[in-house]
Amino acid sequence: MAGSNVRLYVDHPLGQGQPVPLTRDQAHYLFGVMRLQDGDALAVFNGRDGEWRATVTERGKRGGTLTAEAQSAPQLDPPDLWLLFAPIKKARTDFIVEKAAEMGAARIMPVQTEYTNAERIRRDRLQAHAIEAAEQCGGTYVPPVDELRKIDAILDDWPPDRRLIFCDEALAGARHALADQQENGKWAILIGPEGGFSPAERDRLCSSPFVSQISLGPRILRADTAVVAALALWQSLLGDWK
Amino acid sequence: MAGSNVRLYVDHPLGQGQPVPLTRDQAHYLFGVMRLQDGDALAVFNGRDGEWRATVTERGKRGGTLTAEAQSAPQLDPPDLWLLFAPIKKARTDFIVEKAAEMGAARIMPVQTEYTNAERIRRDRLQAHAIEAAEQCGGTYVPPVDELRKIDAILDDWPPDRRLIFCDEALAGARHALADQQENGKWAILIGPEGGFSPAERDRLCSSPFVSQISLGPRILRADTAVVAALALWQSLLGDWK
Repeated sequence: MAGSNVRLYVDHPLGQGQPVPLTRDQAHYLFGVMRLQDGDALAVFNGRDGEWRATVTERGKRGGTLTAEAQSAPQLDPPDLWLLFAPIKKARTDFIVEKAAEMGAARIMPVQTEYTNAERIRRDRLQAHAIEAAEQCGGTYVPPVDELRKIDAILDDWPPDRRLIFCDEALAGARHALADQQENGKWAILIGPEGGFSPAERDRLCSSPFVSQISLGPRILRADTAVVAALALWQSLLGDWK
Repeated sequence: MAGSNVRLYVDHPLGQGQPVPLTRDQAHYLFGVMRLQDGDALAVFNGRDGEWRATVTERGKRGGTLTAEAQSAPQLDPPDLWLLFAPIKKARTDFIVEKAAEMGAARIMPVQTEYTNAERIRRDRLQAHAIEAAEQCGGTYVPPVDELRKIDAILDDWPPDRRLIFCDEALAGARHALADQQENGKWAILIGPEGGFSPAERDRLCSSPFVSQISLGPRILRADTAVVAALALWQSLLGDWK
């Protein structure tokens, strides 16, 4: 009965003695790739019940069963922060989702803007990236990835009690805009496409009462860089890095 | 005489009326890929003389000449911040160098630690990534990329007036460690390999008088994520994002 460093997300309730059926892909990963044997231990989490120590109790080529034994870490939900971003090239979009999950975004929302190249996304594939990032980073929470929506539709429905931080290349004073805020509350960060926002989008954002603007310095950042930088600033000032 | 959005790094002095010879690769990029014609304008920079508007004055398959006309932006050097990182998988190492250049690191130093997988790097290839990032981000500075060196050798020679920030997964209080610092001064950030530091390395770092430790939150970040997050915190508190 060896331990392992494997961490696996399972879409199944977890509790003491709880059997957890494996999908075909999970069985392939655990038994084909990671070579786990009967009785081997691993860590599992489902995004709401914390992390559990589980052991392999049934092993097959197309499935199998784990049994949850004891909770090894409590559920740790991230702060109430949404990340909105305009999808870019495939590899960098994958990176953005991975980084957002690692950095503790609670919800990932792809947005279509006037200058967004992508007209559609593979939501299931992006969700799989978020799961993999949670497995890798030791987290117990998996941010849901929404379907792509137009920015106008998102702003039309915007909840008035949620602040939206809009990262504007033309501004200075990133830290101060956030440092003035005393409470955690509900937040969202919007990262634009590589071509920036259109004048109409910029006007709408700047005139919306729930929008704050911050700057990310004197160099123009790629979208994937800006995502990590903005989340780092927010987490350190208002989030769970404090 | 059309303008273009092309930005090109050239390893050549820049001044009014200065002819700038092109390498074969540069000629291929400008004339083969970007399709610039005689008289077309672009932006050039050499890392020390700011950004210049230049025009194409000679075009060939294996070379050509630009002529610098007028300075279009002043030289903007980043703060005196070094980035030390342990190389990881190729694609992520490339990303780290790209991100460090975008985020305004002044010098990029690959370090070999006990748990570093890479035993060598392609310094010239990494330097090319730093140049491409500077071209892309609108910067006028290109951080030099050093050869890979062992961490012990680097620490043996460490300049005592330069603070080294060591990002430790076990710590809390990222912001406060930096926020206490009043002056800009000379700094460096060290990001470890995915496997962390060895106990001996950790002991040495923790007992070095020039070392500060910071935390990057409760989730374990990949090395490339940690690079951007640490640079963002430093830039917003002590660097040129203030």
